Amino acid sequence: MEYRIEKDTMGEVKVPVNAYFGAQTQRSIDNFKIAQDINKMPKEIIKAFAYLKKAAALTNKDAGVLSTEKCDLIGKVCDEILAGQLDEYFPLVVWQTGSGTQSNMNVNEVIAYRGHVLNGGQLGDKEKFLHPNDDVNKSQSSNDTFPTAMHIAAYKILVDVTIPGIKKLRDTLAQKAEQYKNVVKIGRTHFMDATPLTVGQEFSGYVSQLDHGLRAINNTLAHLSELALGGTAVGTGINTPAGYAENVAKYIADLTGLPFVTAENKFEALAAHDAIVEAHGALKTVAVSLMKIANDVRMLSSGPRSGIGELFIPDNEPGSSIMPGKVNPTQCEALTMIAAQVMGNDVTIGIGGSNGHFELNVFKPVMIYNFLHSARLIGDGCVSFNDKCAVGIEPIEANIKKHVDNSLMLVTALNTKIGYYKAAEIAQTAHKEGTTLKEMAIKLGYVTAEEFDQWVVPADMVGKI
Amino acid sequence: MEYRIEKDTMGEVKVPVNAYFGAQTQRSIDNFKIAQDINKMPKEIIKAFAYLKKAAALTNKDAGVLSTEKCDLIGKVCDEILAGQLDEYFPLVVWQTGSGTQSNMNVNEVIAYRGHVLNGGQLGDKEKFLHPNDDVNKSQSSNDTFPTAMHIAAYKILVDVTIPGIKKLRDTLAQKAEQYKNVVKIGRTHFMDATPLTVGQEFSGYVSQLDHGLRAINNTLAHLSELALGGTAVGTGINTPAGYAENVAKYIADLTGLPFVTAENKFEALAAHDAIVEAHGALKTVAVSLMKIANDVRMLSSGPRSGIGELFIPDNEPGSSIMPGKVNPTQCEALTMIAAQVMGNDVTIGIGGSNGHFELNVFKPVMIYNFLHSARLIGDGCVSFNDKCAVGIEPIEANIKKHVDNSLMLVTALNTKIGYYKAAEIAQTAHKEGTTLKEMAIKLGYVTAEEFDQWVVPADMVGKI
Amino acid sequence: MEYRIEKDTMGEVKVPVNAYFGAQTQRSIDNFKIAQDINKMPKEIIKAFAYLKKAAALTNKDAGVLSTEKCDLIGKVCDEILAGQLDEYFPLVVWQTGSGTQSNMNVNEVIAYRGHVLNGGQLGDKEKFLHPNDDVNKSQSSNDTFPTAMHIAAYKILVDVTIPGIKKLRDTLAQKAEQYKNVVKIGRTHFMDATPLTVGQEFSGYVSQLDHGLRAINNTLAHLSELALGGTAVGTGINTPAGYAENVAKYIADLTGLPFVTAENKFEALAAHDAIVEAHGALKTVAVSLMKIANDVRMLSSGPRSGIGELFIPDNEPGSSIMPGKVNPTQCEALTMIAAQVMGNDVTIGIGGSNGHFELNVFKPVMIYNFLHSARLIGDGCVSFNDKCAVGIEPIEANIKKHVDNSLMLVTALNTKIGYYKAAEIAQTAHKEGTTLKEMAIKLGYVTAEEFDQWVVPADMVGKI
Amino acid sequence: MEYRIEKDTMGEVKVPVNAYFGAQTQRSIDNFKIAQDINKMPKEIIKAFAYLKKAAALTNKDAGVLSTEKCDLIGKVCDEILAGQLDEYFPLVVWQTGSGTQSNMNVNEVIAYRGHVLNGGQLGDKEKFLHPNDDVNKSQSSNDTFPTAMHIAAYKILVDVTIPGIKKLRDTLAQKAEQYKNVVKIGRTHFMDATPLTVGQEFSGYVSQLDHGLRAINNTLAHLSELALGGTAVGTGINTPAGYAENVAKYIADLTGLPFVTAENKFEALAAHDAIVEAHGALKTVAVSLMKIANDVRMLSSGPRSGIGELFIPDNEPGSSIMPGKVNPTQCEALTMIAAQVMGNDVTIGIGGSNGHFELNVFKPVMIYNFLHSARLIGDGCVSFNDKCAVGIEPIEANIKKHVDNSLMLVTALNTKIGYYKAAEIAQTAHKEGTTLKEMAIKLGYVTAEEFDQWVVPADMVGKI
Repeated sequence: MEYRIEKDTMGEVKVPVNAYFGAQTQRSIDNFKIAQDINKMPKEIIKAFAYLKKAAALTNKDAGVLSTEKCDLIGKVCDEILAGQLDEYFPLVVWQTGSGTQSNMNVNEVIAYRGHVLNGGQLGDKEKFLHPNDDVNKSQSSNDTFPTAMHIAAYKILVDVTIPGIKKLRDTLAQKAEQYKNVVKIGRTHFMDATPLTVGQEFSGYVSQLDHGLRAINNTLAHLSELALGGTAVGTGINTPAGYAENVAKYIADLTGLPFVTAENKFEALAAHDAIVEAHGALKTVAVSLMKIANDVRMLSSGPRSGIGELFIPDNEPGSSIMPGKVNPTQCEALTMIAAQVMGNDVTIGIGGSNGHFELNVFKPVMIYNFLHSARLIGDGCVSFNDKCAVGIEPIEANIKKHVDNSLMLVTALNTKIGYYKAAEIAQTAHKEGTTLKEMAIKLGYVTAEEFDQWVVPADMVGKI
Repeated sequence: MEYRIEKDTMGEVKVPVNAYFGAQTQRSIDNFKIAQDINKMPKEIIKAFAYLKKAAALTNKDAGVLSTEKCDLIGKVCDEILAGQLDEYFPLVVWQTGSGTQSNMNVNEVIAYRGHVLNGGQLGDKEKFLHPNDDVNKSQSSNDTFPTAMHIAAYKILVDVTIPGIKKLRDTLAQKAEQYKNVVKIGRTHFMDATPLTVGQEFSGYVSQLDHGLRAINNTLAHLSELALGGTAVGTGINTPAGYAENVAKYIADLTGLPFVTAENKFEALAAHDAIVEAHGALKTVAVSLMKIANDVRMLSSGPRSGIGELFIPDNEPGSSIMPGKVNPTQCEALTMIAAQVMGNDVTIGIGGSNGHFELNVFKPVMIYNFLHSARLIGDGCVSFNDKCAVGIEPIEANIKKHVDNSLMLVTALNTKIGYYKAAEIAQTAHKEGTTLKEMAIKLGYVTAEEFDQWVVPADMVGKI
Repeated sequence: MEYRIEKDTMGEVKVPVNAYFGAQTQRSIDNFKIAQDINKMPKEIIKAFAYLKKAAALTNKDAGVLSTEKCDLIGKVCDEILAGQLDEYFPLVVWQTGSGTQSNMNVNEVIAYRGHVLNGGQLGDKEKFLHPNDDVNKSQSSNDTFPTAMHIAAYKILVDVTIPGIKKLRDTLAQKAEQYKNVVKIGRTHFMDATPLTVGQEFSGYVSQLDHGLRAINNTLAHLSELALGGTAVGTGINTPAGYAENVAKYIADLTGLPFVTAENKFEALAAHDAIVEAHGALKTVAVSLMKIANDVRMLSSGPRSGIGELFIPDNEPGSSIMPGKVNPTQCEALTMIAAQVMGNDVTIGIGGSNGHFELNVFKPVMIYNFLHSARLIGDGCVSFNDKCAVGIEPIEANIKKHVDNSLMLVTALNTKIGYYKAAEIAQTAHKEGTTLKEMAIKLGYVTAEEFDQWVVPADMVGKI
Repeated sequence: MEYRIEKDTMGEVKVPVNAYFGAQTQRSIDNFKIAQDINKMPKEIIKAFAYLKKAAALTNKDAGVLSTEKCDLIGKVCDEILAGQLDEYFPLVVWQTGSGTQSNMNVNEVIAYRGHVLNGGQLGDKEKFLHPNDDVNKSQSSNDTFPTAMHIAAYKILVDVTIPGIKKLRDTLAQKAEQYKNVVKIGRTHFMDATPLTVGQEFSGYVSQLDHGLRAINNTLAHLSELALGGTAVGTGINTPAGYAENVAKYIADLTGLPFVTAENKFEALAAHDAIVEAHGALKTVAVSLMKIANDVRMLSSGPRSGIGELFIPDNEPGSSIMPGKVNPTQCEALTMIAAQVMGNDVTIGIGGSNGHFELNVFKPVMIYNFLHSARLIGDGCVSFNDKCAVGIEPIEANIKKHVDNSLMLVTALNTKIGYYKAAEIAQTAHKEGTTLKEMAIKLGYVTAEEFDQWVVPADMVGKI
C-alpha cells in the first residue's frame, strides 16, 4: 500500500495515501488489533457524531468562533457521512480507549481532511483548511461528544427500530387476541392442566406484556434525551462560548427531529451512563417478555403428533437435515436466542456503568456497543418473528377441543357448590380410575348429571371476554 | 415434640401440637429441606398476605359470600400477623413450589386455625370454624394471591425503605455539593489529571445520579401498583363474585395507604412478572450509581500518605487486626458489596421472569426474594453509608490545593489562545523536564508570564457554579 | 439491657454485659445496620475461623511465640465454636468491611473473652488473660485469615454438602437409566417430534451432565485448597515466625481432614479470589444442568390429560388452593428456582472478584456469602429433588407407546433406502392428510407394506443401548 | 440481480445466479433479516464445519457408503473453505434456528454445488453430482454436526488465540516480577496505605492469577474434546454405519491436530452444552483476573502529578481531543471493557445452556457466538495489552520511595515489640499531628531512636523475595 505522512502532537505516522483520516486514527488501528474484523465501532455512533459535529459547527458559527466557510464545509462532510458515503474511513474498533477519544478524533480527522479536499485542497497538503482539533472539535471534548453520540444513537435506534418492531408484533398479537377471543381452551399452570380460558385471553396477556414493555422503554427516554455536549473535558464546560450547551442541543434536536435537551448536570453526563443502564433495563424487560411469548408459542405448537399441538405456525423452511418433513419453530428460536443475548448484554452494561471513576466513565464504547446490539436485535427480531411466524398463527381447534373435554380441572367450578375437598375427591378419583369428571362426580354421589351439566360449562368458566 | 393429626385432600399429617398451621404447611416443611435455616419466605410477603387476606374477606363479605363473623375473625388474625405476633408459624422457605402455593396455604391455615381458637375453639377440634380453602382462600387462588402479595411487598418496601434511604443520602450529598461549591480541585479522567472543577460540582454529579435513579424507580411504580387478585386460577377470575377484582384492590389500597389498582390484564399478571423485572432494573441502575459514588469516595479519601487524600471520611472502627492505627473506608465497602449483590440479583430475577410458561410463572418466590433483598440492601445501605460516612465527609483543602497547583492540564485554558498543538508541546515538555507549566510556557516562548497568569486561572476554569 | 464497657484502640464502647465479645464487634453492630435480621455472616465462615484460629495457636505454640496455656485455651474455645455453643456471639452481617476484618475481630474477641472466662476470669475484668490481637490474632491479619476461612468453608461445603447431593441425584438417575433402557419413546427436538430413543438413553444424558459437572467441581478444588494464611497484611508474611505458613496449613489440613496447602503466591491469595470465581463457575455449570434436567422432568410429566404425560412423578402435596385434585411438579420448581439463584450469584461473585485493587480484594464477604449460598442450595436442592421426586419417577408406558406409534419422524429410517426427498414427501403428505406414515408411504408407491414393516422399526432406531 | 431457481423439499426458491448455495441458504437469508450486517455466523464455525464434513466424507468412504470420487470432491471444497476462498457464500446470521440447521445446510449446499462445478458441472444443472443431504450430510444431522463444529471451533480458538495471548502477557509480567523483585514499595489495602512489599511481589500476584487461569482453561479442554458427531438426530446414531462415531472423531483429530474423541454420551452432547458453559466459566475467571490487573496498572500509573504515579506505562497516542499533552492508560481501558463483555457473555451462555429441552438444546448459535467472541477478545486483548503497555511498564522509583518513606503503616513492625495497642497510638498520633512515625514513636517514649531504626526497616518487612 502507498502511504502519506501525517502528524499529531506525538509525531509522524504513515497513513494510507488516499485515506480521509490522519495520524490519530492510524495510531488507533495500529494500537488496538483486537477483533478488528468483527467489532467495528457501530455505524449508528458514527452517524450520531455527524449530527453533533454539524450542530457544533453551527453553534460555534452563531457564537462567532467559527467562520461560515468552515461551518459549511463541516456540515457538508457530515451530510456525506450521514449518507453513508464515507463509511470506509471509520475503521476503528470498540476496544479502544474507554472515552471513545479515538473515534471522536477519527470523525474529526475525516471531516477535516474530506472538508479540505472538498474545499479544493489535496490530502497531501501539509496545512489543511480545517484542523481536526481546533476547528472540527472546537468547543468540544471526547468526554462530552462521545456520550452525546451515545444518547443520540441510543434514542434514535429505539425510536427508529426497537419501538416500531415491538409495536408491529404487539399489533399482530392484539389482532389474534381479538380474533380468537371465543376459542375456549384448557389453561395450563405448572405445565399441568388447569381451568379453561380462551386463546384470545392468552394472547391478550402477551399484548399486555408488550404494552407495559413499550411504556417501560418510553419511561427511559427522558434521561436519554439529556445531552452531555457543552461539558467538554470534565463537565465544567471549559473552552465553550456562552450559551453553547443549550444551543447545540437545540441544533441536534432540529437535525434529528428528536426532543434532545442539554443535560442539567454535565458532571453526571460524563462520569456516569446511568441513562444507558436504565434504558437497557427496559430492553431487558422486553427481552424477558419475548422469551416468555416465544416459548409459549413453540410449546403450544409442539407436535405435530406427540406434543400439545394447539397452535399452527407457518412452515418456513425444512427443519432438519436428517429428518425428512420436519418443521421447527425457528422464529421462536431466533427470538429466544436474542433474549438470551440481551440479558447478557445487560450485565456488561451494568458492569461498565458501575465502573466510572471521578470525572469520567471509561466504559463508553462497550456500553453503547451492547446497547445498540440489543436495541437492534429486539427491533429486527420482533419484525422477523412477526412477519414469518406471528401473522400466521392459527388455533388448531380439534386439538384444543379435545384437551378441554378431557380436562379434570373443570372440577374447580364445583368448589362453590360442594366445597374444595369433595371436588378434589372427584378429580383425584377420576384421575386414578381414568374416567371423566362427570362419571366420577355422579358415581361419588356429590352431584346429579343435570347439576354437573349446568355447573361445569367451560365457556362459563372464562369470565369476561 | 408432641403432635396432633391434621388432614388435607391427600390424607393425614402430623403437626406440632400447638402450631397454628395444618397439613399443607407441614408437608412443605417435610418436602423442602432446602436451606431452611437461612431462606425463610421473607416476612414482607407474609405481611402482604395479611393485607390481602383481610381485604379479600371484606370484599367477600360485601359480596355476600362470607359471613360478617368469619370476616371479622379473619381480619383479627391478619392484624395479629401484621403486628408480628404469629411470626413463628410461617416456617416455609423460598425453595418451594414456584407459585408460592404453600405459603398461601400456610397463611390460610394460620388464619383459619388461629381464628378458630380466637373464636373459642381448640386446635385439636376436628372441624374448625374457618376453613383454609373455603373461607380464608375464598375467591382466591395461589396464582393470584402470591403475585398480589409480591406487588404489595415490593411497592411497600420501595416506599418505606428504599426510596427514603436513597433520598437521605441524596440530601446529604446535595448539602455537601452546596457547601463545597467553591472548593476548586483537580479533575481526573482516565485516572489521569484533567482540568479543574469544584468539590461541589463533583458531588452534584452524584446527586444528579440519585435524582435520576429515584425517578427511574418512580417510573416503575405504576406497573407494580397493578394487582393480580381477582384472576384466580388462570386469570379468568373463576369463582369470584361480580366486581370482586376492583373492590378487593380498593380495600388493599385503603389498608396499605398505597395506590393499588386491579391489573387491567390478569393473564399477564399471573403468567409474567415483568413489573418485578422492570422495577428491579431501576434498582440495579441505582446500584450502579452507588458503586460509582462509593468508589469515588474511597479513592478520593485514599491515603493517608500515599493516596489521593482529598476527602476526609469518618473513622468508625479500627481498620486492621494487624496494622495498628489503620482506618479504612468500610462504609464504601459495604455499599459496593451491596451493589454487586443487587447486580447479581438482577440476573436471577431476569431468568425467573423469562421462564414463565402458559398461564403461570412459577419462579415467583425466587423473584420476590431477590427483589426484597435488593430493595432492603439499597435502603439500609444508603442510610448506613449516609449516617456513618457521607455526613462526615470534608475536603482536605491542603492536598486539594497542592494537586491543583501542580497540574499540567491547566494548559487546556491556552487552547483557545495558542492552539491545541502548542499547548500540548508545553504540557509534554513540562512533564518530561519536571517543571511547572508556567516555566515551560514562557521558556518555549508561546506566552508571557503576564498572559499565563491572566489566562490560566483554575477558578476561572470551572464554569458556572 | 445491661452493659459493660470495653475498649479498643479508638476508645470505649458499651457492650451487652454478658456478651462474649468486645468493642470491635459492638462497633460493627452499630455501624452496619444493614439487613441484620437476614444476612448474618454464614455459620460456615465462623466454623472455618475456629479451625484456623486453633491451627494458628498450635503453630504459634510450636514456633515458641505463644504459651501452651494460651494455645490450649484458644483451642478449647474453638471447639466450643465448632460445636455450635457460641453461635449467639457472632451477630455480624455480611455487609461490613470488605476484608471481613470485623468478623475476624469478632472471632478474636469471642475466643479471648470466652477463654478468659474458661480460665477463671470475669467478663468485666479490665485485663484479660488472652488478648484478641496480640494472642488470638498472633501471626495473622484479617487479610490472610478471612480468605483462608473462605477457602476452608468453600472446600468443606463442596465436599460435605454439594458433591454428595449431586452424587445422590446422579446415582438415582443412573439407576433409572439402567432400569428403563429398553423403553422406546419418541424423541423431541425443537419441541417437535423426532426419531425415537429410549427412556434410559434420555436419562443417561442427565447422568452424563452431572458426571461432567462433578468433574468440573473437582477440577476447581486444587485452587481452593491453597490457603492465604501466612501472608498477613499484604502477602509478605510480616510478623510471622519462620515456617509459619506451611505449618499452619498442615494443622488446618489435619483438623479438617481436607488436603489444604499453603498458597504458593500469597499476593494473589489476598488480592484476588479467582479460586472462588472459578469454583463457582463450576457450580453455575451444574445449575445449568439441573435447570435442563428439572425442566425435562416437568415437561415430560405434564398433563395429566393435556400434556405430554410420559413420566409419572410422585404427588407430594395438594398443588392448588383453588383447583381441587391438582398436583404439580413442585420439586422441579424448587430446583429451577435454585438454578436461577445460582446463575445470579455467579454474576455477583464475578463482579466482586473483578474489583480487587492493589494488595487486597475487599469484596470478600459478599463473594463467600454467595458461594456458600449456591453450594448449599445445589446440595440441598439435589437431595430434595432426589428424595421427593427422582426416586419415584416411572415411565407411563401407555402414553409413551401412543406417541411412538403416531410419530411421523420414523420416516427418517427410510432416508438410506429411498433418499431424503421422497421420505420428506411421505411425512409431509401424511401430516397434511392426517394419515399414518405407512399408509402414505404405500399410497405414494415408494415402499411396499412389507418393506415398511421391515425398515421402520422404532426399536431398531435407537442404536446401541 | 440475476437469479436461478433452486428447489428443496418445500419447493422452489430464487437464488443469485452465481451463488454456490441453494434453496435452504436462501430461505434463511429471507427468513432471518436480523442484524444481517453485523452478526454473521462466525467464520470459525464455518471452518470447523469444513474439517468435519471432510472427516465425515472420509469416514463414509471407509465405511463403503460414499464413493471415493464424491469423497475427494467434498474434501477439495472443504480445503477451499479452510483457505477462505468461499467466504462470501456463507451469508447466514447467528439469529436463525437454534440447532444451526441452516448453517449446516449452507455448508452442505456450498460443498455440493461447488463440488458439482469442480466436477465439471454447471450451477444451473437440475441434477447435481453431489446431493447436499444424501451425500454431503450423509451419516449426519445438524443436531450432531453443529455441536461438533462448536467444540472444534471452541477448542481451536482457545489453543490458537486465547491461551497463547494469555501466556504472552503472563510471561511479560513474570519478567517484570523478576526484574523489580527488590524495588520496595508501599502496600495498599482498602485503597489505604499498608505495609510494604516489592514491585516484583505485586507483579508475581498477577502472574499467579494468570497461571491459575491458564490451568482453569486447560481443565475444561477435556470436556470440549468430546464430539457429538455420530449421534445424528437425537443421539442414537440413527443412519450411521458401524464404527462411524469413533472413526470420524479420529479423522477430525488428525485434520485439526487436536485430541478430539467421540463423546461417551451423545444424548448429553446434543441436548446440553455444559462443556461450553464450563469452559466459558474459565474464560470469565480470566476476565476477572484481567480486570484486576488492568485496574491496578492504571491506578498505579495514575497522575502524572495528582495520582499515585508509581508505574510508568508507554504513551501510545494523544489522550485527549481537548486537553493538550494528556496521555491515558488506553490499553487498560480496552482490556477492562473486554472483561465486562466477557462477563456479560457468560450470562448469555448460561441462559442458553440452561434452556435445552428434551433431546436438543436450541441455543447453539448464540452460545458459540458468545464463546468465540470472548475467546477472541481475551486472546487479542492480552496481546494488545502486552505489546502496547505491559512490555513498557517501569517503576517510577522516586515516587515509590517517597511513598514508602512517608508511610505510617511501617508501624506494624513494632507489633511484636511493643504490642498492637501502643503501635496504634503511635500511628494515630503521628497521623493527627502530621509527624513521621519515628518522631512520634520516640516522643511517646515507646522506643528509642536506635530501636526504631533497627526494627522499622521497610526492606526487612517484605519477607522472602
